[in-house]
This record gives sequence, C-alpha cells and structure tokens, in this order.
Amino acid sequence: MKLYIGNKNYSSWSMRPWVLLKAFGIPFEEVKLRFDFTPGSAFYQALAALTPVGKVPLMVEDDGFVIWDTLAITETLAEQHPEHAIWPRGARQRARARSLCAEMHAGFGTLRSLCPMNIDADLQAVGTRLLATEPKLKADLARVDALWSEALAASDGPFLFGAFSAADAYFAPVVMRVTRYGLPLTAAAQAYVQAIEAHPAVQAFVADALAERDFIAEDEPYRTQA
Amino acid sequence: MKLYIGNKNYSSWSMRPWVLLKAFGIPFEEVKLRFDFTPGSAFYQALAALTPVGKVPLMVEDDGFVIWDTLAITETLAEQHPEHAIWPRGARQRARARSLCAEMHAGFGTLRSLCPMNIDADLQAVGTRLLATEPKLKADLARVDALWSEALAASDGPFLFGAFSAADAYFAPVVMRVTRYGLPLTAAAQAYVQAIEAHPAVQAFVADALAERDFIAEDEPYRTQA
Repeated sequence: MKLYIGNKNYSSWSMRPWVLLKAFGIPFEEVKLRFDFTPGSAFYQALAALTPVGKVPLMVEDDGFVIWDTLAITETLAEQHPEHAIWPRGARQRARARSLCAEMHAGFGTLRSLCPMNIDADLQAVGTRLLATEPKLKADLARVDALWSEALAASDGPFLFGAFSAADAYFAPVVMRVTRYGLPLTAAAQAYVQAIEAHPAVQAFVADALAERDFIAEDEPYRTQA
Repeated sequence: MKLYIGNKNYSSWSMRPWVLLKAFGIPFEEVKLRFDFTPGSAFYQALAALTPVGKVPLMVEDDGFVIWDTLAITETLAEQHPEHAIWPRGARQRARARSLCAEMHAGFGTLRSLCPMNIDADLQAVGTRLLATEPKLKADLARVDALWSEALAASDGPFLFGAFSAADAYFAPVVMRVTRYGLPLTAAAQAYVQAIEAHPAVQAFVADALAERDFIAEDEPYRTQA
C-alpha cells in the first residue's frame, strides 16, 4: 500500500494518516509529491494520473484502488487492521473519538486558514498578534482546548482516549500549530500537547519535515524565507 | 434515541441522519430546535443544555450521551445496526462511499455557501446567475457530477452503490440544492437526482420541510419572504 502525501512541513492532512500508520506499525510506502499549486504542475499531473480528486493524502492499494480523504482512510485502516485499536475499543469512546475527528474535519476554519501548519517555523509573534486581533481564532482555540480537556478528563492515559488512537493522529497537526504559533492553552491541554510531541511517530514526522528545507511561498503567509 | 435537528427547510446537515434513519426504519424521536442564531436564543440554550458543540444535528442516547457531527452519527449507527447495510456491504464500495462522504463533509464550500439549502424555494434564476458569474460554483458542481457519475457507472442500482446507503443520505441535501437552484447536470447525474427525489425517506423530509412555513431571514440570502 502506498500513501501519497505532500510536503511534510506544510501538509497537515498528510500528517494524519502518516502518523497513524507509523504509530501502529502498519507498513506502507510513502510517496511524496512536492507541493506546486501552479495549474498543470508535476504535482497536479501525478495526482491526476491516480484520481480526479486532486488532493493529498491518498491511500493507494497495490492494484491501484484509491481511497481519499483522511477520515475514509482512517475508517478503512481500522477495518483492515482489527488487531490495532485505531479507534478506541469501547463503543462510546469510539463514538466520541469519531465526533472529535469529524468536528475537526469540517471545522476550525479560522485556525486552519490563519495558522497554516509550518513545522519548521517559529511564528510565536504572529500567533500573539493574531490572537489579539482575531476573535474567531480565539474561539477556535477555546473549542480545541475544551474538546481536548473534556476527553482527557475521562481518559486513563496521556492521550485523548487512553492509548494513542486515530483521534490523536487527527489532532497532531493542531498541536503543531499551537506550538509553532505559541497559542496558549489550559494546563490539561498543554500536557496533551507535550504527550503528542513526545510520541515517536510524531517525532519521526517532525524530523522529516525539518529536514525538507523546501520553502513553498504559497504556504508561507508570514515568512519570506526559511 | 433522540435526533435533534434544525429547521427542515434549511438544515442540510440535519437532513442527512434524518433521511438515513427513516430510510432504514430505525426508530428515533425527532426533536426540532427552531433556528435562531441570536446569541442566547432558545435554540442555543437548548443546545447548550446538551453539549458545548453548539450545532445540530445531535444524536442523544437514552441516558443523555451525545454523539455529534453527521459522519460520527453515521458510523455509530452503522455499528449499532449491523442488520442494515448503512454502508455498502463490499469493502471497496464501503471505502469509496466513505471517501465520497468525507469529501462532501469538508468540501464544496462554494456550493454550500452560495446555494444554501432551501427546499421551499424556487431559486432557478439565482442559480443561473450564480453559475454564470462564480467559476468556483461551476467547479464544485462539476466535481459533484463527476463523483456521482463515476459511482453510478459502477453501481447495479439507482443509487450510488446499488441500494440506498449512507452515501445517498449524505448527498440528498445536494440534490435539494441542485433542483432548487436549477443547476444543470449530465444525464447520469440527473437520473440520480430523480432517484433521490423519489425515495420515500427523502419525500417525507421534503413534505415536512414544505409544511414548516417558517421564514428565517439569516438562511435566506435571496428572498425577502416565502
């Protein structure tokens, strides 16, 4: 199975299934398509050869069958690997984990647009300024904090539902935003940030992202160079 | 189990689980919270008593446990009701159905914002004008058409994956937009529109929506009265 991803430094959607696969030790071949949003670019040509979806990440089975969108990839992996608790084992924990992931999937538009993932960057001054001027960003951050804090209060481990699950892979890119933009959290949420940052699968992704050194101007609203 | 929904005429997200439950004959109690987006409204107070999520639809179990977001509700219903093919029975059809739903869940922002669901309205002139002036709307529509057409070409029934499934419940509100705004489709996609409109669960929802006669100005960018 192949996982097509974009630049690790920038692609928050790519980070989710990559970290999930690594965390559970599910073998896959990574295929990185360097971001280039020019129409007709090599990036778009490679995608178009696979599917009309036009986005990463893509999970491509050995015979070429394409599964797109992180939630569909996650559910499919959970079905294919019942030996792993990709979703929490308890039915209600699982329902709650899915609620959190679905809310993330469609929501938090301000956090996502104003604070794009940029693992390599120190954007703390930007984050401080944005928080002071953008009430919707503050609201998104408060909701993230509340989501995490509520799940953690009921959790018997450092992660949202005890052991590391798909929900944690889903929020790993949010952790990257929070730390790079220096967004303040309550103590419980801050402890969760540290647990995510200490996870080996996250550390492996971060190391690869830092090694990329590939400045993509369209993903850099706040810097002119790395 | 209770399903909390908003106004049937406007709430595309509410339509999805409602139609899904009806289509499979799963019993539920409908609780309609009339839309009122004024801070502190009865709508927000009723939601706040259930969960901090602040959105419909919500699935509330008999003991008060809340499951939010349509994809999480759909997956949970599929788990709770293995006797129903809420997702298609074939693993690959299921993966594909999930890809379609997840793409809908997070995408098609222009179609959703420019053509909000309004079952009671005839907005064909608006749709024609928007299509001529909004290239992103045209792109969203082309993608919907392609998604449907590809699935239908492999389907052995009138619906996206043969028999009616969660994927069809997910696209039922899109069918409402297409017909109300008079958006043109290819022949295969148009036949699908008719199959969705003829489904008893969709017809039941539409009948309720038409009976509402409750004009909510914030959901009416194009009309001043019903």
